[in-house]
Amino acid sequence: MTDFATSAHASLPDWLVAELDEHTGPLETHEQRMALVNTLADRNFREGNGGPFAAIVVDRATNLVVSVGVNVVLSSGLSAGHAEFMALSLAQTRLARWDLGASGEHELELVVNWRPCIMCYGSLIWSGVKHLVIAGDGPELEQLSGFDEGPVPGGDWRAELEARGISVTMDVLRDEAIAVFTEYGRSNALVYNARGTGSHLAG
Amino acid sequence: MTDFATSAHASLPDWLVAELDEHTGPLETHEQRMALVNTLADRNFREGNGGPFAAIVVDRATNLVVSVGVNVVLSSGLSAGHAEFMALSLAQTRLARWDLGASGEHELELVVNWRPCIMCYGSLIWSGVKHLVIAGDGPELEQLSGFDEGPVPGGDWRAELEARGISVTMDVLRDEAIAVFTEYGRSNALVYNARGTGSHLAG
Repeated sequence: MTDFATSAHASLPDWLVAELDEHTGPLETHEQRMALVNTLADRNFREGNGGPFAAIVVDRATNLVVSVGVNVVLSSGLSAGHAEFMALSLAQTRLARWDLGASGEHELELVVNWRPCIMCYGSLIWSGVKHLVIAGDGPELEQLSGFDEGPVPGGDWRAELEARGISVTMDVLRDEAIAVFTEYGRSNALVYNARGTGSHLAG
Repeated sequence: MTDFATSAHASLPDWLVAELDEHTGPLETHEQRMALVNTLADRNFREGNGGPFAAIVVDRATNLVVSVGVNVVLSSGLSAGHAEFMALSLAQTRLARWDLGASGEHELELVVNWRPCIMCYGSLIWSGVKHLVIAGDGPELEQLSGFDEGPVPGGDWRAELEARGISVTMDVLRDEAIAVFTEYGRSNALVYNARGTGSHLAG
């Protein structure tokens, strides 16, 4: 046998697994959904799993949460372990299909506490999710947290999603999201960085 | 217990695991490395694991292959299971670190059979890999295979990588890569598609 790795794994942290039972009820409004995301993002960096990011996938037909994700770059050891990657992959794992848009009656939405980084922007497009709900976009995240979000297409980023059948809802609990990034920037949380240049992993 | 998934997994296909012992020797040239990638990409779609894409991570100091990846969207059930994601995640799993640039003496390169889709373009940036080697870029991939690669930043895509300390080597065995995409386009391989609009998952 060789030393090659043949399988990659990423798991939710124990503290989040322990509270999943609390998230089985419907979340009727975008504000309720984003409040959960902001709360998880805040706890995530304090627990040391990764950056101040969380994401959930919600079924618009039932208002039920399909999956919950947080950034697990540090705890999983995978640089791709962003919150959106976790939420999308765990939804696909639970539903046993890589195309989350396969059921026309159950359109799914991704709720996340800022505009996704370039990697997660792409993973959203390939996931089959039909709706993106974000707390905001703009430079505040990079300024407050020190993260590099990558060269996401500038003014066209919404149009590129909409051209692919994905709607965008903006500015849901924006101030609350910024408050989390501000706390992160002020904290002693480990700032991870794959390039040694003062820019950081995101998502 | 809830029905929530708490862990996501992606594994290499059995046929590739079975031949990993063949890839433990050094690959001295970019052409040798890309020849392996093209061969794996061709076999991958014929085996039904996913699209005609493969990627390897190579240690430039030793010329040894650190990890091997192929597109496993269909076999893993994860839309993020692109070849680059697999190669990068498996390298991080083997080396037990999310930052593949952490060892200055062992700069790693990602070798892949076309310019990465927007998701994998981002995942490259966050991985810590210092070099990207591709068979080519341009519209041929999308034209021949029917895949959508997403809105990767246009003329600036190389500059954005180089600004983040990642070098780019182009046009290694380009014709051989195009031949694989041509075969894929002519085949009866399952064309997967998360949006039902005639565009396809990539990478």
